[in-house]
Amino acid sequence: MRYKVTVAYDGTNYKGWQRQPHSIGIQQIIEEVLCRISGEMIDIVASGRTDRGVHAKGQVFHFDTKYKMDVNGWKRAFNALLPSDIYVTSVVNESENFHARFNAIGKHYEYKLYMGEKNIFLRDHSFYCYYNLNMQVLQDCCKMFEGTHDFSSFCTNEFGTHPDQVRTIYECSVKKVDNEIIFTFRGKGFLRYMVRMLVGTMIEAARGKITVAEVEKILLAKSKDACRYKAKACGLYLVEVLYEKK
Amino acid sequence: MRYKVTVAYDGTNYKGWQRQPHSIGIQQIIEEVLCRISGEMIDIVASGRTDRGVHAKGQVFHFDTKYKMDVNGWKRAFNALLPSDIYVTSVVNESENFHARFNAIGKHYEYKLYMGEKNIFLRDHSFYCYYNLNMQVLQDCCKMFEGTHDFSSFCTNEFGTHPDQVRTIYECSVKKVDNEIIFTFRGKGFLRYMVRMLVGTMIEAARGKITVAEVEKILLAKSKDACRYKAKACGLYLVEVLYEKK
Repeated sequence: MRYKVTVAYDGTNYKGWQRQPHSIGIQQIIEEVLCRISGEMIDIVASGRTDRGVHAKGQVFHFDTKYKMDVNGWKRAFNALLPSDIYVTSVVNESENFHARFNAIGKHYEYKLYMGEKNIFLRDHSFYCYYNLNMQVLQDCCKMFEGTHDFSSFCTNEFGTHPDQVRTIYECSVKKVDNEIIFTFRGKGFLRYMVRMLVGTMIEAARGKITVAEVEKILLAKSKDACRYKAKACGLYLVEVLYEKK
Repeated sequence: MRYKVTVAYDGTNYKGWQRQPHSIGIQQIIEEVLCRISGEMIDIVASGRTDRGVHAKGQVFHFDTKYKMDVNGWKRAFNALLPSDIYVTSVVNESENFHARFNAIGKHYEYKLYMGEKNIFLRDHSFYCYYNLNMQVLQDCCKMFEGTHDFSSFCTNEFGTHPDQVRTIYECSVKKVDNEIIFTFRGKGFLRYMVRMLVGTMIEAARGKITVAEVEKILLAKSKDACRYKAKACGLYLVEVLYEKK
């Protein structure tokens, strides 16, 4: 039987989603809980990785098991055994054709930052920006990033080159609520570090360090050396993974 | 020279304010930082203690030192050396007559809880209430607690008896914002665990486990055995300590 699971996690205390040899990833915690429930060694498959310190409100993974339990039982069992910073919000039955990564048709990310006086209660969940940011500049940059572009400039070169760095952003927007600024990114898919590099670049522009024209130059350069900015992981949330309606 | 310092802290990782023999209190962390700055062993005096897991947005303490630095220098030095969950918001000069505990004329506490779907990002900063609460009942209880009462029923008996358990609450109110409920308590002073026991009792009433008349009976009992409820520490914030204007 195949299950689709939606999970929220606070990434602060983990080295990212992926199981790793010398540190603890969220994947490993969930697989260990699955083993305790079912007695089976089960590999789970996520919609994609999240990096160290990045949060999720709606990461999705699937897994297969012979162990029989209804979906509410699975949700209760997960949440009884998972630590307090990981929480399963839904478990549904899926056909053998469902694949959390290959079937994803879109992703929704949010990036949060705040300005003004430092707030320790937000320290791991929002990026503290010492500078006051120009909202018009942020909006102009967002508009520029929307649509289909080669985002080579906004992608890490740490892990070799991807075959194709053209991506489509359906929505790139920004709003201000009191001292907080929230960016929304919706797209078919994103390159590694792409959202954080886009946000980091927008911050530099909005605090007056570079111009909007220079931001455009970085985008058009399509070069791994063009962008030197990457916003901190703690402000980033994977909000939702989208799939075709059944 | 005497200084008055206002400090915010996230109580999650500490055993409360007070220096303790076998665990780390916030007081100890601050005194160690003071020693690193000034080279002196300095005892700081707070407006009062906060318990394990309780937060502060505006705790106040004073200290004396021979070390010379202007107040902005002190603030910067504190925040450069303090861990990320403790933050000094202001440092001001005070006369030798100022005393953080004896001169306090009032305190403002907040208690936060939320209902609905569990939110891991609030887990240490708001109490998750599984039950839907009746706002009218909460408001009736708040009205009952306002004013001057003998609060013996809402005080721990763990640490001997206080000489006098009569306290005046200037304001006890509650508001609902989306799924969040915020209680406000303003008074001259509060007994140990008093706010958490008042909130715990109100929750029992608002979920229908006891009646408002029974809450009143607990208040009028003036007995350490009358109240069995205490809300979790993670929802409680010491917001502000009030002093006479100079």
